[in-house]
Amino acid sequence: MILQKQEIAELDKDYRRAFINSLAGFRQAVLVGTISKKGITNLAIFNSLIHLGAHPALFGLISRPGSVERHTLQNILDTGVYTLNYIQAKDYRKAHQTSARYRADVSEFEQVGFNELFHDGFQGPFVEESKVKIAMKFEEKIDITVNNTVLLIGSIEMVEISASLIGQDGFVELSKADTVISQGLDAYFIGSELGRVPHATP
Amino acid sequence: MILQKQEIAELDKDYRRAFINSLAGFRQAVLVGTISKKGITNLAIFNSLIHLGAHPALFGLISRPGSVERHTLQNILDTGVYTLNYIQAKDYRKAHQTSARYRADVSEFEQVGFNELFHDGFQGPFVEESKVKIAMKFEEKIDITVNNTVLLIGSIEMVEISASLIGQDGFVELSKADTVISQGLDAYFIGSELGRVPHATP
Repeated sequence: MILQKQEIAELDKDYRRAFINSLAGFRQAVLVGTISKKGITNLAIFNSLIHLGAHPALFGLISRPGSVERHTLQNILDTGVYTLNYIQAKDYRKAHQTSARYRADVSEFEQVGFNELFHDGFQGPFVEESKVKIAMKFEEKIDITVNNTVLLIGSIEMVEISASLIGQDGFVELSKADTVISQGLDAYFIGSELGRVPHATP
Repeated sequence: MILQKQEIAELDKDYRRAFINSLAGFRQAVLVGTISKKGITNLAIFNSLIHLGAHPALFGLISRPGSVERHTLQNILDTGVYTLNYIQAKDYRKAHQTSARYRADVSEFEQVGFNELFHDGFQGPFVEESKVKIAMKFEEKIDITVNNTVLLIGSIEMVEISASLIGQDGFVELSKADTVISQGLDAYFIGSELGRVPHATP
């Protein structure tokens, strides 16, 4: 079937949201850990992790200021730091629960049942259960004015990962750690490898 | 193991590129179809598709001006249109081959063996073999100056998809079409569903 722009615009709002969001495909699910100026930790699931570059190592996140992600964004702007924590398959329901609209004075770590972990010299809270933990330093906020979203750019300060997950060439075997992939607003997957392909030449 | 920022910066260049790129996790692989001012079609695999919003329906792509993606970027800026075409598992090697640095006067469609498909009234070439085809209109280019990358924002003009892949609530069952997921520079996967989770409330 063919859906034209105008037909998409006329779809029921919830249907359209599920359709367009899931149409954008598979994405890395990640728990973003932050702490407020008052010292209250926050944990929120994002599925908008973006690779921007390896040297310097920069990742992006998309945030909607009006959404449940607003506490995360505010904490990052206030403290300048955040953590990225990958999710194992067994924890996907708990991870999804962080998307509930909790009050600013409660911690999603406690509410959904993940353990906080802190590293000396870094203010952001990590998820102890995560097999891959990344400490991020906020670098830049780019406003995407066309639909009032924000691209948050951060640099990697530290990566904590089992050495057994890193291949000889540096490739991170996330699928071996049952790392959760997301699609749309509410669907979760793990990856089955098709293969790796040599660098392509004409 | 823990890798600090300075240790990452001191890694071998190829190792670091593979490490950081694959660390960013699973992403939707998509073939971006464009056409040059001279009428030569181009096809390039991207793994940086970003969902920006559903209403209006906006997707982003990250492009590095100096890379093999330069023809794609130039064609989009010249013609204002492009297509997004998802890849089936059986085609992942062919799709990867579009990342080779072909000359501007040859078409990757022909070189790697995908069929071009055109729709009346839309200039961009689609991949006939793709189960999901999206016509995009270029909206905005945002320069990410920190590392000389570009965020290309486009709006969805048209979606062509089998009705059997769309659930009652609008969810697109990409995994049923063996849709390829990418990780890093050269690894490809398909998704095995863990489940869908109801909207979370505190």
